[in-house]
Amino acid sequence: MNLTGELLIGAQTVKGSRDPVVAINPATGERLSPEFPGGTPADVARACELAWSAFDSYRETAPSARATFLETVADEIEGLGDALIERAVAESGLPQARIQGERGRTCGQLRLFARVVRDGEWLDVRVDPALPDRQPLPRVDLRQRHIALGPVAVFGASNFPLAFSVAGGDTASALAAGCPVVVKAHPAHPGTCELVGRAIQAAVAKCGLPEGVFSLIHDSGLEAGQALVADPRIKAAGFTGSRKGGLALWSLAQQRPEPIPFYAEMSSINPVFLLPAALESRGKALGEAFVNSLNMGAGQFCTNPGLVVGIEGPALDAFVEAAASALSGAQALTMLTPGIHDAYEHGVSAFAGNDKVREVARGQEGDGPNRCRPALFVAKGEDVITDEALQAEVFGASSLVVACRDAAEVKRVAEALEGQLTATLQMDDADLEAARALLPTLERKAGRVMANGWPTGVEVCDAMVHGGPFPATSDSRTTSVGTAAIYRFLRPVCYQDLPDALLPEATREGNPLGLRRLVDGQRES
Amino acid sequence: MNLTGELLIGAQTVKGSRDPVVAINPATGERLSPEFPGGTPADVARACELAWSAFDSYRETAPSARATFLETVADEIEGLGDALIERAVAESGLPQARIQGERGRTCGQLRLFARVVRDGEWLDVRVDPALPDRQPLPRVDLRQRHIALGPVAVFGASNFPLAFSVAGGDTASALAAGCPVVVKAHPAHPGTCELVGRAIQAAVAKCGLPEGVFSLIHDSGLEAGQALVADPRIKAAGFTGSRKGGLALWSLAQQRPEPIPFYAEMSSINPVFLLPAALESRGKALGEAFVNSLNMGAGQFCTNPGLVVGIEGPALDAFVEAAASALSGAQALTMLTPGIHDAYEHGVSAFAGNDKVREVARGQEGDGPNRCRPALFVAKGEDVITDEALQAEVFGASSLVVACRDAAEVKRVAEALEGQLTATLQMDDADLEAARALLPTLERKAGRVMANGWPTGVEVCDAMVHGGPFPATSDSRTTSVGTAAIYRFLRPVCYQDLPDALLPEATREGNPLGLRRLVDGQRES
Repeated sequence: MNLTGELLIGAQTVKGSRDPVVAINPATGERLSPEFPGGTPADVARACELAWSAFDSYRETAPSARATFLETVADEIEGLGDALIERAVAESGLPQARIQGERGRTCGQLRLFARVVRDGEWLDVRVDPALPDRQPLPRVDLRQRHIALGPVAVFGASNFPLAFSVAGGDTASALAAGCPVVVKAHPAHPGTCELVGRAIQAAVAKCGLPEGVFSLIHDSGLEAGQALVADPRIKAAGFTGSRKGGLALWSLAQQRPEPIPFYAEMSSINPVFLLPAALESRGKALGEAFVNSLNMGAGQFCTNPGLVVGIEGPALDAFVEAAASALSGAQALTMLTPGIHDAYEHGVSAFAGNDKVREVARGQEGDGPNRCRPALFVAKGEDVITDEALQAEVFGASSLVVACRDAAEVKRVAEALEGQLTATLQMDDADLEAARALLPTLERKAGRVMANGWPTGVEVCDAMVHGGPFPATSDSRTTSVGTAAIYRFLRPVCYQDLPDALLPEATREGNPLGLRRLVDGQRES
Repeated sequence: MNLTGELLIGAQTVKGSRDPVVAINPATGERLSPEFPGGTPADVARACELAWSAFDSYRETAPSARATFLETVADEIEGLGDALIERAVAESGLPQARIQGERGRTCGQLRLFARVVRDGEWLDVRVDPALPDRQPLPRVDLRQRHIALGPVAVFGASNFPLAFSVAGGDTASALAAGCPVVVKAHPAHPGTCELVGRAIQAAVAKCGLPEGVFSLIHDSGLEAGQALVADPRIKAAGFTGSRKGGLALWSLAQQRPEPIPFYAEMSSINPVFLLPAALESRGKALGEAFVNSLNMGAGQFCTNPGLVVGIEGPALDAFVEAAASALSGAQALTMLTPGIHDAYEHGVSAFAGNDKVREVARGQEGDGPNRCRPALFVAKGEDVITDEALQAEVFGASSLVVACRDAAEVKRVAEALEGQLTATLQMDDADLEAARALLPTLERKAGRVMANGWPTGVEVCDAMVHGGPFPATSDSRTTSVGTAAIYRFLRPVCYQDLPDALLPEATREGNPLGLRRLVDGQRES
């Protein structure tokens, strides 16, 4: 398939007419063709109009039909073959094996949501039958199900050109919920976006769905995205990216005449707590494993371990020494874009220039453009508690080790943290009580709490929470990864005394869809 | 129990030091003693501090203990006996039978949430066990449960001094979720608030819970409520009241350094659609039943039928004639407060003065202060579509009949409406296709869609949705009545590879709480 650089608006392809997006291979600095001219507000409005037209029909597709559509999207993406891998590698600087793995995850995610849609638990059907003889007042017949919120705007991330982009988690969960999707393509990988967008467009056509179920808009600036969030036909949005960008769009979503849910996954420094026995028994091994997690993918993960907390002393010194040694020899990997590389250098300089911070190691200089030279710093617990600049996220392979005087100060550091995606305990059996003392704080601060692992790596499954208190996300009540993400795009509707013929199938007498409904307080099996 | 006019801050009673709230018997204009001096920002901060201190402990109470607490609150409220009924009648002007019924509903609601808490579905436990041999990568052990958001601020409504006030739905669902609650007492019924507040305070003590689980603050102005929403220890809020008040507090909640969920139930005109066959066969009976629903409780319900839509012609004329006749003889009932009565008169005058509107009937003048003289108006469909002033909610027994040219215009009126709590179809069998054509619009516009009933009357059960798209509420993804309301105050947390001894009981191996967990994609029975 040849890239054309066009917008995908419903079943059409349309040449944009604003400043073009130009992809750059960050490993070489080379400009990649074609150009992707930006969509106008009118293009955005047309996509939203089509999405709105498709909504009532798409949201009432049978679960089996919608599941088949999600599977067809996965098939079509796989059908793109090596062209997709090559383009995504060229646009992201990420290794081929990583992109292949990400394709597998993306398609697996679509198929997992197909299972969820078929299973039907997301409908959350509740039936309270009429009680005409109840005293003092009869009860009417009441039935509840979930319906889709409406067309959803999706803003993909730079760092997962497949799994958090055009057909990523936000799109998969919104489509699963019954919401048409309009994607604002990430300007770092417009060609990857077009390829995946065309795969979705083909799946919409193959499944005979209304064309407005999917559209894709390019823009090198902010205007198209802002128009998208402001459009009255958009009823929710998903975003993965920087805190600044997320908050700006979130704010726009709240200021609409009709505010909408805006799910922004923004920033997190993912604290790791080195508990005393673990630090004592395996400080060196932890230091090495930590650097491995820190420098993976040039540290360009929202779950990157950006803060490590321990009690000062020889064991923490040994950890820092091992980490510094590993990091000094660590490879400088290519970052996703020149802009991200600049921001990384700026963030590292800010730490290096902070007199409460001591630089303990930098990695190797790279031999090409946009290379991420890893960085490790140390600061005192009391300074992290009082200076919020020390909690700043540096997107990339930079981390701060926090040396605390005692366990009480470790706890105070934990309490002083902003909301996080993850919190990690490195613990041995002897650390159980110390872990127990920290756990209530960590649960309040993070969406995922783990032991003896590293936060990078997010499984797509039922139990995953990729979310957390503000500012990790804009809405801690949800997750953007895993099957529970479908609930972000649903709302309950109650039907009172409707004739059976008028009721949605899921709520009818006789349970024609075979759902596990809550009937008069009891779960049907 | 003698009223003291004090604030209830944890286990303490504290005399406020700002301008007092003074209750007025709206039926007589009489001032009721005592005075309730307002809480200062320092009082609010103290209540929030206690709530915060209580949070980690209260959120981890065993389901059985928390359920017993909710039942104890109900018992204590019933134990207030006639004193509660008398005070609530005096402060609200509502009839004794209505207040008795509302007490039954309030206590029934608390006991229903006790059942929900014990049942444990709200924990939504999901377990994805480790798969150490999975290729290409092993899977870690992942477990998810819901935990409480944090201390919750509750703003009660004027029109349900028991069921939507101190121990009303918001408080019951927040306490059920594991959230301490700080209530801002409604200034229309401070004595009722104190009585119920003392009942909750007594239940907290009897159950041995931390005192910060509940506090109650009075204020005659806005300051205490604003301080409450702005307090960083408050993590969510529930509100029932006017659109103006709700949006002001909602906006404050969004502007915090850490924005929080603010569940405002605000305004709704609850459209009723008179479909042709029903209108033809029983227009007169519908007109009479409509006025009965409209004037109930002086129309002071958020589900009051403020808009009735039909196709112009003799059948609609007969409906209007019957309604006008019933309304002309309808009693003028006492409104809740002088302020609400003034706002009602102002709203009715605005309709009467709108030259697109024709007044067809007013009810009897009352013979005391604050009486609601019912009002009925008629307008054309095209005017309702183009002039949003005709969609304004008039809180009280005022309604607008909308005469449309044809079914297409009825649909356009439906599409032009703002978000609603309810939408009603009056339909006969022959109206089935007409109803089917309207249903997708009504589902998009309202939280509850009903046939052949009237929107007033909200059952507290599993299937109820008392919510709806903006501006009916600030968050259409939830309900403020019924058992699903518990989900407003919860968030998911994922535990990865935690030792069993460190895991929350609900997520442990062996399922010690006997929950219906989702394990590896399968529901445990």
